[in-house]
Amino acid sequence: MTVRAGILGATGAVGQRLIQLLEPHPEFEIAALTASEDSAGKRYDEAAKWRIDVPIPDSVAEMTVGATTPEDVPDDVDLIFSSLPSSVGEEVEPAFCEAGYIVSSNSSNARADDDVPLTIPEVNADHIDLIEVQRDERGWDGALVKNPNCSTITMVPPLAALDEAFGLDRITVSTLQAVSGAGYSGVTSMEIIDNAIPHIGGEERKMETESRKLLGEFDGAEVSWHGARVDASCNRIPTLDGHLENVWTDTEADATVEEAKEAMRSYPTLDLHSSPEQLIHVFEQPDRPQPRLDRDADNGMAIAAGGIQETDGGLQFNCLAHNTLRGAAGASVLNGELLLERGYL
Amino acid sequence: MTVRAGILGATGAVGQRLIQLLEPHPEFEIAALTASEDSAGKRYDEAAKWRIDVPIPDSVAEMTVGATTPEDVPDDVDLIFSSLPSSVGEEVEPAFCEAGYIVSSNSSNARADDDVPLTIPEVNADHIDLIEVQRDERGWDGALVKNPNCSTITMVPPLAALDEAFGLDRITVSTLQAVSGAGYSGVTSMEIIDNAIPHIGGEERKMETESRKLLGEFDGAEVSWHGARVDASCNRIPTLDGHLENVWTDTEADATVEEAKEAMRSYPTLDLHSSPEQLIHVFEQPDRPQPRLDRDADNGMAIAAGGIQETDGGLQFNCLAHNTLRGAAGASVLNGELLLERGYL
Amino acid sequence: MTVRAGILGATGAVGQRLIQLLEPHPEFEIAALTASEDSAGKRYDEAAKWRIDVPIPDSVAEMTVGATTPEDVPDDVDLIFSSLPSSVGEEVEPAFCEAGYIVSSNSSNARADDDVPLTIPEVNADHIDLIEVQRDERGWDGALVKNPNCSTITMVPPLAALDEAFGLDRITVSTLQAVSGAGYSGVTSMEIIDNAIPHIGGEERKMETESRKLLGEFDGAEVSWHGARVDASCNRIPTLDGHLENVWTDTEADATVEEAKEAMRSYPTLDLHSSPEQLIHVFEQPDRPQPRLDRDADNGMAIAAGGIQETDGGLQFNCLAHNTLRGAAGASVLNGELLLERGYL
Amino acid sequence: MTVRAGILGATGAVGQRLIQLLEPHPEFEIAALTASEDSAGKRYDEAAKWRIDVPIPDSVAEMTVGATTPEDVPDDVDLIFSSLPSSVGEEVEPAFCEAGYIVSSNSSNARADDDVPLTIPEVNADHIDLIEVQRDERGWDGALVKNPNCSTITMVPPLAALDEAFGLDRITVSTLQAVSGAGYSGVTSMEIIDNAIPHIGGEERKMETESRKLLGEFDGAEVSWHGARVDASCNRIPTLDGHLENVWTDTEADATVEEAKEAMRSYPTLDLHSSPEQLIHVFEQPDRPQPRLDRDADNGMAIAAGGIQETDGGLQFNCLAHNTLRGAAGASVLNGELLLERGYL
Repeated sequence: MTVRAGILGATGAVGQRLIQLLEPHPEFEIAALTASEDSAGKRYDEAAKWRIDVPIPDSVAEMTVGATTPEDVPDDVDLIFSSLPSSVGEEVEPAFCEAGYIVSSNSSNARADDDVPLTIPEVNADHIDLIEVQRDERGWDGALVKNPNCSTITMVPPLAALDEAFGLDRITVSTLQAVSGAGYSGVTSMEIIDNAIPHIGGEERKMETESRKLLGEFDGAEVSWHGARVDASCNRIPTLDGHLENVWTDTEADATVEEAKEAMRSYPTLDLHSSPEQLIHVFEQPDRPQPRLDRDADNGMAIAAGGIQETDGGLQFNCLAHNTLRGAAGASVLNGELLLERGYL
Repeated sequence: MTVRAGILGATGAVGQRLIQLLEPHPEFEIAALTASEDSAGKRYDEAAKWRIDVPIPDSVAEMTVGATTPEDVPDDVDLIFSSLPSSVGEEVEPAFCEAGYIVSSNSSNARADDDVPLTIPEVNADHIDLIEVQRDERGWDGALVKNPNCSTITMVPPLAALDEAFGLDRITVSTLQAVSGAGYSGVTSMEIIDNAIPHIGGEERKMETESRKLLGEFDGAEVSWHGARVDASCNRIPTLDGHLENVWTDTEADATVEEAKEAMRSYPTLDLHSSPEQLIHVFEQPDRPQPRLDRDADNGMAIAAGGIQETDGGLQFNCLAHNTLRGAAGASVLNGELLLERGYL
Repeated sequence: MTVRAGILGATGAVGQRLIQLLEPHPEFEIAALTASEDSAGKRYDEAAKWRIDVPIPDSVAEMTVGATTPEDVPDDVDLIFSSLPSSVGEEVEPAFCEAGYIVSSNSSNARADDDVPLTIPEVNADHIDLIEVQRDERGWDGALVKNPNCSTITMVPPLAALDEAFGLDRITVSTLQAVSGAGYSGVTSMEIIDNAIPHIGGEERKMETESRKLLGEFDGAEVSWHGARVDASCNRIPTLDGHLENVWTDTEADATVEEAKEAMRSYPTLDLHSSPEQLIHVFEQPDRPQPRLDRDADNGMAIAAGGIQETDGGLQFNCLAHNTLRGAAGASVLNGELLLERGYL
Repeated sequence: MTVRAGILGATGAVGQRLIQLLEPHPEFEIAALTASEDSAGKRYDEAAKWRIDVPIPDSVAEMTVGATTPEDVPDDVDLIFSSLPSSVGEEVEPAFCEAGYIVSSNSSNARADDDVPLTIPEVNADHIDLIEVQRDERGWDGALVKNPNCSTITMVPPLAALDEAFGLDRITVSTLQAVSGAGYSGVTSMEIIDNAIPHIGGEERKMETESRKLLGEFDGAEVSWHGARVDASCNRIPTLDGHLENVWTDTEADATVEEAKEAMRSYPTLDLHSSPEQLIHVFEQPDRPQPRLDRDADNGMAIAAGGIQETDGGLQFNCLAHNTLRGAAGASVLNGELLLERGYL
């Protein structure tokens, strides 16, 4: 028996990746697609400008797109994947939760809310039980679960590995982000060819807050955020997919390069359907990871790390993840798999 | 009366920029061009694959390229601009100095030597008098003067402005560097299209050491390097020209964004021929500076800064400079102008 | 005395280039700017997202943008430069002509109309007098003059040179067009990085019809279109500016490569203010012209040609022009200069 | 039983693709790797700078690279895949044939030789028996078989389909070629970012001659080349993989767009291991095929076509193939499979 799933914002860049991942998924079945009013009522292949390099699945092409309201989604749908602009998500997601749907959302609204689990299953799966707190407080039959921002997801697993091994104090990160992170039309070609843009609205604050919540401790009632100071600077560069990040961190205990590699390599993956075989791929070559060469490892669900060096009192390293797979659609699907494994579905 | 100047490594990417700058220069006159053995004896326009977007000057096109030895350079040449691979520079530049030539060099060898002035004229012009120490120690009639690495030049002027205003403690920098920094063939298209490379050999160490020497104090006998800790991470991205950098710095005194802008804007330029009108252009828009839009300001000799924010105990900002103009050829020419102004020519 | 000029569609990509060209222009003075309803009433620098690599002129930054109607343009404006979407141009331009304005338009509507002059001044300046026919027929005090599409302008001057020398029979052209030709947001980065798109809506037909009208004869009453067959295929590639084209043509008389070069080189320019010094720059190097290296020749107003080869019964060659300067804004300004020289202003 | 195969030029861009294809191949087994003198004696993963986005197979990584001479290749190797610079191939390939090896070569030397089969199996498999003529004339135990140039392979299958259906008279083609076609270091980033190069040395002549040989008739003794006139213009653009081409052709019989599509769609594939399921994928959308979206169809072995339009007396269309898979390594492997099927191995 598969779980019947709906996709909110199915025509967007992340929505298309959700379709790519869910169509062959053994546990989930695409049962509803929604989009903005303009698209509602159209066949999916007419509503969406499909632009990823695998063909649009036939079964999905013929589905009719609905409006993004609980009324337009069949009752036998149990799980909702949401990839909406945050202003829309803010309004619509609670309505779905109230109507009894479990929502695994990639939208940025509500990520910092006290009673909303923000999870990367391999890092903080236990936070998922914040759902109990949420249901108590909000009186929902459904639930709202969030995955973090793509740039946050990229660095948190290696940071979690280092935190566990050495303790972290201060984190500084600079990102080189791919254009797909802004959605299909988010970055025009005239803006980015032969160029880089040292600003992505709101992204720095997201990295600074989300990472501290993800690395925090959940005691059954609330999440105590991690105490590390985080400073981020975010840049857009002319790559299609794959966010590359330079990270520096002060560690509480002394750490050698070899110990750091070992901490990352031995950091466990899960056996959820979409989990990578190896969570963190650590490269020995100093010029890796690179977006084009390394973003697709383990179906785009691995984190790549490299360039690990000791600094005075800490470490610096580079990391990379596929931003629309590991960093968005895949993150939501993985959260869905966690919800299923933990009995919420 | 113009100073007769020779260019070592005249066919390379920086060599071509030197020609572009020197051909119309009112104080200098191109009197000799040298290149590797393969090119020696050829007309310049046959030896060089000209690839910048201004035409090759006619007078230069017809010059004959010589070998890179003092013997192949006429005696009435006084000033040598050198843009050689460091291994070649290491061997050849001292020979020129010994033969009595003043060498303004962009090559990375000898930059950290105690008796070699490493100068950005607007920042530490006084270091030029290290030439006296050098001549004492080495017994040269000539002299060797260096400009720093392109990635160092980009961040040092804004850092110098902040250091003067607030005192600097700890500097962390991430670079997004253009392909021209690696020379014409340094980065293949297959390496960099839809990609970024988080490693530039030796570059991080150059930024960490050169910036401390540049920000240091010269007491007439030696340079005391600045005590700040510097951590750098260097990346190559698919831009043609213009290095963009994210910088964080802890400051000794408290600093507001407005004070930081004021410190940068009021940091003085010089009235050397190639000096920019305004040394540091500070942008109010959070998404500037950008390489393609801002690298050419003041003939590619300005530094652009923006995105200034307060952090806990410090500041973060972005900066940008044209790497082959301000960061290489223009830096050497400016040092030549300083040498002339200070009476060394 | 300068002519007071208005710009319709002043915030778009071509509108910005018009401002760049007109602000320092000795014969014209920017007296009005219009844009869509959203922008009307705003300061220009608030309404426009300025994105070319020269700063926005101060005098223009402070101007107030009006709506695109004759009522919103001061009466003492004599000349209107129009760069509107064709559907808007179709509606609005006749209203301006009726209200007495002379309109030099880059919009694609009405280019094929019998009584509308379509001119490249160096090629068919005499067609401008079609204005008399137009005024007779339409009863306008003003007049409507068009420049051709950017891809057409690129190939027509060299074709005109060859037509005059050898007579042309059949023309086949493939284009490699820059993204700026689609306007600022016309091509997203996700569409074009590591990609090419073999389709530009309507462009092939524009090249096929406009070139025959431009190469046609005007007898004072009507233009007889050139009889050559024209086949075009249009592609978008990841370049910012500069359309490159491969052209084959059968010639009536035999033509050698040398004769073809001579025909192109000796094809006269005009002495209008914006005319290039040399209309067609012919390269000897087989790998030129190239967009990045050659688009800016003669302030972006020259046509570059190269790769000329004999074929069986004809010639093949490559040509290039800056699409938003020579191919759009500069083309409209040049037509404005022609209108002034011919006494229409 | 698998055929033991050697790869000449195994460290190059096409050599790496050969390894990618042969390592999992059910019929062939990689038994020898050769490269230039510099690499001979090294482990493969030390000799090669691996740069495709699948990892280097472990079994291959550890192999020792030999020199490119028959002496350095084990005797039990039967089949040689060659991807050498043509000047090296010209010297070395005959030595291998003389030593009894069957050579399936991607190198451009000898492609036009009367007694050398030049084959695209789906198009002219029967030409393979030219081997008999070759052995008679040259007295070889081995044999030399060539696949055409990548740009030729892209257009010949659709042309063959049209030729069969309507007869072809005159062919004009413009190419937009990816940088990988020039090898790993063939195109520098400074040459091609924000640029296009309208010249690829020798490529136009290759397309003009090879296509006529491929479309020719083999009568058991010699190949009569096709009589069509072919005019080509070749351009390099900033794409990584996938050559896109605009083709015009005059047809002997009248042809509608629908008939042309049908001719292409029904043109048969083979059931060789590497054959695509469908040889020519015909797109209905006018803006397809596009390199990034369509180059990987059927494991990079399909030809994509689209934009088919009627012209006066003929047709125009666009086509695309993955240049290092279908156009190089895959083409050689397919020829190897044909040699096996026809009993030459």
